[in-house]
Amino acid sequence: MQITAQALAHFLGGTVEGNPEVTVNRPSKIEEGGEGSISFLGNLKYEKYAYTTTASVLLVSQDFEPREPLSATLIRVEDVYGAVGQLLQQFGAQEAGVSGISERAVVSPQASVAEGVAVGDFAIVSEGAMLGPAAVVHPQVFIGRNVKIGARTVLYPGVRILDNCIIGEDCILHANVVIGSDGFGFAPQEDRSYQKIVHVGNVIVEDRVEIGAQTTVDRATMGSTIIREGVKLDNLIQIGHNVEIGAHTVIAAQTGVAGSTKIGRYCRIGGQVGFVGHAEIADGTQIQAQSGIAASITEPGKAWFGSPAIPYRDFIRAHSVFKKLPDLYRSLSRLQRAFDAAEKKGRD
Amino acid sequence: MQITAQALAHFLGGTVEGNPEVTVNRPSKIEEGGEGSISFLGNLKYEKYAYTTTASVLLVSQDFEPREPLSATLIRVEDVYGAVGQLLQQFGAQEAGVSGISERAVVSPQASVAEGVAVGDFAIVSEGAMLGPAAVVHPQVFIGRNVKIGARTVLYPGVRILDNCIIGEDCILHANVVIGSDGFGFAPQEDRSYQKIVHVGNVIVEDRVEIGAQTTVDRATMGSTIIREGVKLDNLIQIGHNVEIGAHTVIAAQTGVAGSTKIGRYCRIGGQVGFVGHAEIADGTQIQAQSGIAASITEPGKAWFGSPAIPYRDFIRAHSVFKKLPDLYRSLSRLQRAFDAAEKKGRD
Amino acid sequence: MQITAQALAHFLGGTVEGNPEVTVNRPSKIEEGGEGSISFLGNLKYEKYAYTTTASVLLVSQDFEPREPLSATLIRVEDVYGAVGQLLQQFGAQEAGVSGISERAVVSPQASVAEGVAVGDFAIVSEGAMLGPAAVVHPQVFIGRNVKIGARTVLYPGVRILDNCIIGEDCILHANVVIGSDGFGFAPQEDRSYQKIVHVGNVIVEDRVEIGAQTTVDRATMGSTIIREGVKLDNLIQIGHNVEIGAHTVIAAQTGVAGSTKIGRYCRIGGQVGFVGHAEIADGTQIQAQSGIAASITEPGKAWFGSPAIPYRDFIRAHSVFKKLPDLYRSLSRLQRAFDAAEKKGRD
Repeated sequence: MQITAQALAHFLGGTVEGNPEVTVNRPSKIEEGGEGSISFLGNLKYEKYAYTTTASVLLVSQDFEPREPLSATLIRVEDVYGAVGQLLQQFGAQEAGVSGISERAVVSPQASVAEGVAVGDFAIVSEGAMLGPAAVVHPQVFIGRNVKIGARTVLYPGVRILDNCIIGEDCILHANVVIGSDGFGFAPQEDRSYQKIVHVGNVIVEDRVEIGAQTTVDRATMGSTIIREGVKLDNLIQIGHNVEIGAHTVIAAQTGVAGSTKIGRYCRIGGQVGFVGHAEIADGTQIQAQSGIAASITEPGKAWFGSPAIPYRDFIRAHSVFKKLPDLYRSLSRLQRAFDAAEKKGRD
Repeated sequence: MQITAQALAHFLGGTVEGNPEVTVNRPSKIEEGGEGSISFLGNLKYEKYAYTTTASVLLVSQDFEPREPLSATLIRVEDVYGAVGQLLQQFGAQEAGVSGISERAVVSPQASVAEGVAVGDFAIVSEGAMLGPAAVVHPQVFIGRNVKIGARTVLYPGVRILDNCIIGEDCILHANVVIGSDGFGFAPQEDRSYQKIVHVGNVIVEDRVEIGAQTTVDRATMGSTIIREGVKLDNLIQIGHNVEIGAHTVIAAQTGVAGSTKIGRYCRIGGQVGFVGHAEIADGTQIQAQSGIAASITEPGKAWFGSPAIPYRDFIRAHSVFKKLPDLYRSLSRLQRAFDAAEKKGRD
Repeated sequence: MQITAQALAHFLGGTVEGNPEVTVNRPSKIEEGGEGSISFLGNLKYEKYAYTTTASVLLVSQDFEPREPLSATLIRVEDVYGAVGQLLQQFGAQEAGVSGISERAVVSPQASVAEGVAVGDFAIVSEGAMLGPAAVVHPQVFIGRNVKIGARTVLYPGVRILDNCIIGEDCILHANVVIGSDGFGFAPQEDRSYQKIVHVGNVIVEDRVEIGAQTTVDRATMGSTIIREGVKLDNLIQIGHNVEIGAHTVIAAQTGVAGSTKIGRYCRIGGQVGFVGHAEIADGTQIQAQSGIAASITEPGKAWFGSPAIPYRDFIRAHSVFKKLPDLYRSLSRLQRAFDAAEKKGRD
């Protein structure tokens, strides 16, 4: 996208100061800049860069008063951060890079493909699958039998959606995500080997869910593993069979949720957290990175930390003593000796 | 699969109570049910659902005595859980979704393909590879040169088996598993950069092994990384070069095993556990989730917890004091002050 | 590769003792050996195997004096380990298994492909992409629009490089690596849902970087996520948006680095470590496996351990007391009771 300062100012509801004909084709950070880029000054801490930046256009607030000469054309707006958000959307809204049904894709004649769907090279859409309007299936994606993909959902290269799983509308699944692999369930046998438990359930991903690269969501033994509306999962996360993640919960990278655990709505969960199976986690729970949740959490809206996790503040206090444990140990030994000496003296 | 209650009862060795002609096409949970589904009552805790479930057929034990009217047709069996297992097998034993050799696959003329093998679209079978009878290679799988795949083994979409690796019979490798990536080995140079150590070994996966989605098993520097018979690995696990996992050991998701470590047989290892390299872990060891194993474990059959891990019970006890560390710290300070005061008084 | 002992000795600058015409086709461990293999005796601890090994050729040091008869042909060299390194390179330097541009690949006419490039079956090279001389693109790889791949860089099967990312020269990206997935950034809305923050930046991977299987590197919101020269990343690592990893830093498997954190040069980071976002980590920092880095580290060259991490030695000392916490707790209680009794007695 190539756009003039004038056109951008119009789009953002701002006013131009400088050359309205200068064009930009990308956003930049103010300290990096570069000709042809548009940068912004949101926090006056970075003001010094405004005078040295090589960005062609600078987005500033209405009341910004330069104290030195500037080379960039200014666009003044009311809300700098709001305008930056609009800007990123604008520059990011490039074409998907895939359009129409590639003749190198395999789309089963028994699949149903709505209008405006794109299917990339070497992608597979199996029999009984349904792709909603304007769904984007990037190259090398696998869509199993009877899978449903909602309208406008985007599947990046290498995504695998196995048989019978359902993905909602306006979802984004990043590269190499796996949805619907078998859960990890085995019945111990008398000879101490394990017998696989067949998984006949599926995975349901509701609307407006984003799932990060390489994340795996296992299918249910029976019934469904469910990722509710608006959930955001980062990369390399493991979601076990029959798990349910409540609406608008966000989970950072490399966290794992063991089988049958139900996580509430509006939770905020750090990276590398582990959840035991069969637990229930209350709405609005916040969990620090690397914590281990070994049991259900019933009180909503509380913060937790540690492995196994305890209330956040308790952990912070306990950990501050943990660091001093060698001192504490020595103090106790010293006191014991002093006491013993006093006792002995008392007896003498 | 569509089957009548009568036929199912026959298959399960049970007896019908109600309409023998009602048909079911899927299993369900008793609290979810749904017309056309078969559910089960294994634990009387769920008895109330027996009277409200919309499942068409309900599997119950021979001695179950309903206390209210039921709408579902009953099938009475001796062992409800056993019957459920058979049922899941039956409903799960659908076709693989791939049969024959796709003309959109690339199978090298120098590969050897046994009878009954299926190779899906856009899969690659390189020269020198051998596929055993009835092996199932799903679409978009990569099989490198001289790879051997045993009879009836199933490779899900996106699996990558790199050159010279060997997979046994009756294995299941889930989507996007990588077998035979190079180990992480580098020789530090004088200029503080690193020189890659070439990995000329391979990976051997024995029979009846299941490997979860996105798990990686690195090839040996020389010799073989070995996953013994009956091992079950969950999703997103990392197995380093020259590691050996003993027969019938199970490992939960996101655990990592560093290079050259040997894990014994019949171990049970939780999720997100880390193993140091070059350790030996005794048979039957049990390790709690998120533990860190920093040294060899020589005594078989013991349980461990913590990072670095200590014996399970010791950890539980130590952690229960950890939570009280601030109290302990205050108690000690208070006692010290009281003692000092007493001492001072004694001296006065 | 099939080579005679004579030819190998010549290549390694060594001398033959025994049959110079015996041929070998692979390296082996001395305790495993095998006819047609070449093994080595580097450490005299393994000397006993020299007399029993079935390897056809044995690499030994110039001053090795056998105390028993040997069946293997010897090659004597000055530096055994150096020779083994050369040997592994030699045997490892097999053909890439892919050469030329497969007619089953899709290479955009708007892509630029240098001399000697190989592109495997079902790989995709999108418009505007540039492949440097002798780059190796294995089958089933995805290369997005405007991606640059440096000379001699190898992309293993299933690698996904998304639009606008740049990979340097002599890099190795193992199977299923994802470069350029969107960062995990969402703006909380008033209704407590989240709005995606568009990511218009890219990823820059400099020269001589190796990235392990299934590792993900997210693109920057704006600007670039940067992996500097000579960095080595193991498998299943997560690198967040706008992160920078300094030159020649090595990171073991399953570690995660949250957004905008800058890690210094020559750092050595264990497996399953977590880094908070927006931190700066000094050059030469060493971090033990499973540690959690919750803040910036300013002093270079120090070692850290624990979650949250503290200086390595402090952690080791504190952890040694942690194990004794129940004893410490009992000792304190006992002392308190003894003191109380003494006090009471004093008062009586």
